[in-house]
Amino acid sequence: MPSVSSRANNMPASPIRKLVPFAEKAKKQGRKVYHLNIGQPDIETPDTMLNAIRNFAPKVVEYSHSAGIESYRKKLVGYYQKYNIALDYTDIMVTTGGSEAIEIAMMTCLNPGDEMIIPEPFYANYNGFSEQAGVKVRPIRSYIESGFALPPISEFEKLITPKTRAIMICNPGNPTGYLYSRQELESLKELVLKHDLFLFSDEVYREFCYDNREYVSVMHLGGLDKNVVLLDSVSKRYSACGARIGAMISKNKEVMEAALKFAQARLSPPTFGQVAAEAAIDTPQSYFDKVKKEYVARRDFVITALNKMEGVFCPNPGGAFYCIARLPIDNADKFCQWLLESFNYKEQTVMLAPATGFYSTPGAGTDEVRIAYVLNLDDLNNAMLCLDEALKVYPGRKVKEKELAK
Amino acid sequence: MPSVSSRANNMPASPIRKLVPFAEKAKKQGRKVYHLNIGQPDIETPDTMLNAIRNFAPKVVEYSHSAGIESYRKKLVGYYQKYNIALDYTDIMVTTGGSEAIEIAMMTCLNPGDEMIIPEPFYANYNGFSEQAGVKVRPIRSYIESGFALPPISEFEKLITPKTRAIMICNPGNPTGYLYSRQELESLKELVLKHDLFLFSDEVYREFCYDNREYVSVMHLGGLDKNVVLLDSVSKRYSACGARIGAMISKNKEVMEAALKFAQARLSPPTFGQVAAEAAIDTPQSYFDKVKKEYVARRDFVITALNKMEGVFCPNPGGAFYCIARLPIDNADKFCQWLLESFNYKEQTVMLAPATGFYSTPGAGTDEVRIAYVLNLDDLNNAMLCLDEALKVYPGRKVKEKELAK
Repeated sequence: MPSVSSRANNMPASPIRKLVPFAEKAKKQGRKVYHLNIGQPDIETPDTMLNAIRNFAPKVVEYSHSAGIESYRKKLVGYYQKYNIALDYTDIMVTTGGSEAIEIAMMTCLNPGDEMIIPEPFYANYNGFSEQAGVKVRPIRSYIESGFALPPISEFEKLITPKTRAIMICNPGNPTGYLYSRQELESLKELVLKHDLFLFSDEVYREFCYDNREYVSVMHLGGLDKNVVLLDSVSKRYSACGARIGAMISKNKEVMEAALKFAQARLSPPTFGQVAAEAAIDTPQSYFDKVKKEYVARRDFVITALNKMEGVFCPNPGGAFYCIARLPIDNADKFCQWLLESFNYKEQTVMLAPATGFYSTPGAGTDEVRIAYVLNLDDLNNAMLCLDEALKVYPGRKVKEKELAK
Repeated sequence: MPSVSSRANNMPASPIRKLVPFAEKAKKQGRKVYHLNIGQPDIETPDTMLNAIRNFAPKVVEYSHSAGIESYRKKLVGYYQKYNIALDYTDIMVTTGGSEAIEIAMMTCLNPGDEMIIPEPFYANYNGFSEQAGVKVRPIRSYIESGFALPPISEFEKLITPKTRAIMICNPGNPTGYLYSRQELESLKELVLKHDLFLFSDEVYREFCYDNREYVSVMHLGGLDKNVVLLDSVSKRYSACGARIGAMISKNKEVMEAALKFAQARLSPPTFGQVAAEAAIDTPQSYFDKVKKEYVARRDFVITALNKMEGVFCPNPGGAFYCIARLPIDNADKFCQWLLESFNYKEQTVMLAPATGFYSTPGAGTDEVRIAYVLNLDDLNNAMLCLDEALKVYPGRKVKEKELAK
């Protein structure tokens, strides 16, 4: 019997999805599971988008251009203009979700064996796409104590080798919720120019910046046109994760021309999703205002609830809809599985993502979990109650000295 | 300025799409271009499918399961049952088009440096996906004189090395339209078992078998459960290329489990397309009967027209909606570009795909083109008139001895 490739063996299972069978089992046992493990918001997709699909008129569902429907790409120029990102539509290639934007960007810019530096914890699937592309991830540690701020540039310098080809960031950050300051990004810019690197920036959460904090895109930094590749998606913006529409954006023509060859191989991004996403650009600002208000309320509730729990610490994120919390537990993977397999509070439990999957450094994040605050306040309240109760009875609770002294 | 990867440089431009800029220019000059270059049918998508999209009810466009919507996978079992392919729904993973099925199958089963034998001419994007996966394609030549029948197994044997991991076929074939006989497939089976190889079979054209010829799937061959990976798509079946819904199918559990990790990295296939594809399974047989009748009429017309042209030879394909024709020309790439750039017949021209892009052996197919008979009979008639006229005046026409003697 032929065996699977070692690439397949090395491919990491999704830390977000690997607990799914346990959740399914808990549900079959009649338990309510609060899904804080995945960035699947409960926010309604805007009608602008859904109506476009309901009014889909063509009689043939055709391939689009490999780079995306031209009218959609042109309309995206206006969308980015609102964020002070000046683009020509040829700078934009529509992709099948942000996932494919990452995948094609890596394949276009890096060879097998090349290295990419990513501040960790980072979006776990960067690992998967790196494995696929044969790219070696060099993680650079950021810490919960500083809210996961950008590590000092001197630490980046230590990791740079002749094989280093790119730096990847996510801003606002998944899984940290951290929002990079202009100063942090300017310091990255200097580094990127000094070493002639690509700078990949995943900015799919730009609609979710809180407390009037400034969203600074890598596209706002001058002099980086040849280096910057912006990775984007409509999934979170319009709560339309299933549309699978994203974008790879660069002013580096050589990059975009090469990327198109990968795009041509897979023919085209989904037509239905593009039609919906094109219409979605007309979504009124009131939709986003309402959504942002809702997320701020959720964030405030969750962060407060977490920090009230004995032994729990969670920094206040400036963007996205995630936070990473440090829990008084022996092992986050065990704890998250235990929540689904062995725990319930009034027939309810909560599903979290162990933070270990977001770190590339072995052993990092063992006592941290990622929480996606993508449910309504009532559900979040119940989920936090579950978590609080669970931490009290979890057999692997780490007893802190403070508690021992009680 | 950082440069693109050598992988990107090596990535082949799509032979089907690389002439697109010339076609766009011709259209801007007011010319009608008949697109016989790409398998984008003009056949209407069935209402079963379009109505499902028009009635899309959920308020949130969510991710689906990474392996696809469960109800869709279960319903697909019934679809395959009609073709005597007995599956469990867990044997089926829904993909973003057949393209992604190919991509994931290669990554799952082959390592960089591994070899895959493919009878040529073959679907050009197999090259692209191989380049992405670092897989070396070993082409085995099939010939227009025999209608592109399977090469003798002894020829395959000559190509097998310790690095050979898979054989890939397309049946009914794109770009040849060739339909493999049971005998041919049985001989492949013996080879695959003898050398413990994977057998990838792209059968996206199974609905298009003509002249009451039997469709034999690799899934019909007994004893190959561990070896066979079926690659599928709804694109042609329902004339829904833009839906981007395909499937990777295998009874090898190890393969399917590993494939799921790649699927998880990209989160999920498109939700809209899956909803449409699930509904499409209820499309009445009358739709397919009508479509098949139409394609047979088109095929008969095109093949007859081609073989009537001086110096042209085209075998009669048993399936799909392509044929490869040998033309009296110096160079198919030049000719196809010339058709768009420098030729018109009553302000009309025709776009063809040079067959060179479907061969991996350098120099093969130089005087061949692939024709997709995806337009209605009137358009096909005009397209054939254009081609006939074009061949008369093309400066690179190869003058045969017979003609010289005139």
